[in-house]
Amino acid sequence: MDDSTTVKTLKQSVVSFRDARDWKKFHTPKDLAASISIEANELLELFQWKTPQEAQALLDDSTKMQEIRDEIADIVIYCLSASDSMEFDLSEAVAAKLQKNEEKYPVEKAKGNSKKYTEL
Amino acid sequence: MDDSTTVKTLKQSVVSFRDARDWKKFHTPKDLAASISIEANELLELFQWKTPQEAQALLDDSTKMQEIRDEIADIVIYCLSASDSMEFDLSEAVAAKLQKNEEKYPVEKAKGNSKKYTEL
Amino acid sequence: MDDSTTVKTLKQSVVSFRDARDWKKFHTPKDLAASISIEANELLELFQWKTPQEAQALLDDSTKMQEIRDEIADIVIYCLSASDSMEFDLSEAVAAKLQKNEEKYPVEKAKGNSKKYTEL
Amino acid sequence: MDDSTTVKTLKQSVVSFRDARDWKKFHTPKDLAASISIEANELLELFQWKTPQEAQALLDDSTKMQEIRDEIADIVIYCLSASDSMEFDLSEAVAAKLQKNEEKYPVEKAKGNSKKYTEL
Repeated sequence: MDDSTTVKTLKQSVVSFRDARDWKKFHTPKDLAASISIEANELLELFQWKTPQEAQALLDDSTKMQEIRDEIADIVIYCLSASDSMEFDLSEAVAAKLQKNEEKYPVEKAKGNSKKYTEL
Repeated sequence: MDDSTTVKTLKQSVVSFRDARDWKKFHTPKDLAASISIEANELLELFQWKTPQEAQALLDDSTKMQEIRDEIADIVIYCLSASDSMEFDLSEAVAAKLQKNEEKYPVEKAKGNSKKYTEL
Repeated sequence: MDDSTTVKTLKQSVVSFRDARDWKKFHTPKDLAASISIEANELLELFQWKTPQEAQALLDDSTKMQEIRDEIADIVIYCLSASDSMEFDLSEAVAAKLQKNEEKYPVEKAKGNSKKYTEL
Repeated sequence: MDDSTTVKTLKQSVVSFRDARDWKKFHTPKDLAASISIEANELLELFQWKTPQEAQALLDDSTKMQEIRDEIADIVIYCLSASDSMEFDLSEAVAAKLQKNEEKYPVEKAKGNSKKYTEL
């Protein structure tokens, strides 16, 4: 679906869901930020105490992979809701941030360089 | 841009940026999860110690609003990178999660109901 | 118990629990950091979508208060385990950090000042 | 200092610092929870993109080790402030949580078992 779904279409499906339940009033900027953090940590918990190898192996477990997809979807849902209620264009925000990062991490210096990257 | 940008286009711009720097090797599932949490908390920090009213007022401050957009963009960038490296369709994941939530929070029961919502 | 329990006694009870299960090997610096974040977000989730007044009111609910205590205890347990495995004195670390903060936030400037505080 | 410092003494030093600045009003339950998460993620950021080996090696870097100690101290400072404003005994909370965990993770079953542990 990613190749035919616009960000606006995705955002509208989130907004419809939210507004049918009259939940926009709960989606304040601070509560959305807290909720993204909460969902991100539910995602992180799936990998808790795992070695990098064990964490990678979860991707071959279809039940775990479903949980991973669900948690990432929750995070994206809140980002889309934030972009609606804070009234900014999410695609533009992503393009602008990538542009900033281009300047901050020029390819010739940053290539394969974890040390540089940790300053992202 | 949101009305003309597909999720795939957005994902490709993130993947191009990442691969030009040979950074895919750092984007392990566990490190992406940790990084989403780190960025979410940089977003949350913008609202730290603020009342809901003070937090809302930040949206009228263009410098703060730029920081908010940048942090949300960072979160979405990592989600797009995760969807690429973990090889799943992000639009499909969002649609599937909204469908689950439809069943979990039927409109008639959930409408305007924060108590129900806190169990999301 | 706080007035008669030393930090060392508390740390030893955590270390005994951990070592009886041979869990020190899981308590790497990075996994402890991730686990503190995960527990902090379980705590934060108890207040999700609540107004400050609703959040405050939870303190009068003995079941919720038990959950709050348990989550804060989990966070402190991981901090004590970290102080053991990373071999530093936690009381000294707290005293040193408060000293730094004294210099960063002199009373005359910081008093009642949320703006200053947000830079903590 | 850990062997001669009681939890109460540590708590009092945090409370003195906070009250001299009239900051108790900012330390609401929800904001303390958010702040613990924010500090935990500053800690986690020190290990971002690191392999477990690279993360472990940071402990031999005295500058990094100072940053780690400072972040863990910040987390403990907020937990101590929470224990004061929410009026519960922190040592008792830790002892009670360890007791619960004893029942949940009996030594004979949990020993060296990461799988069991991930359900903690």
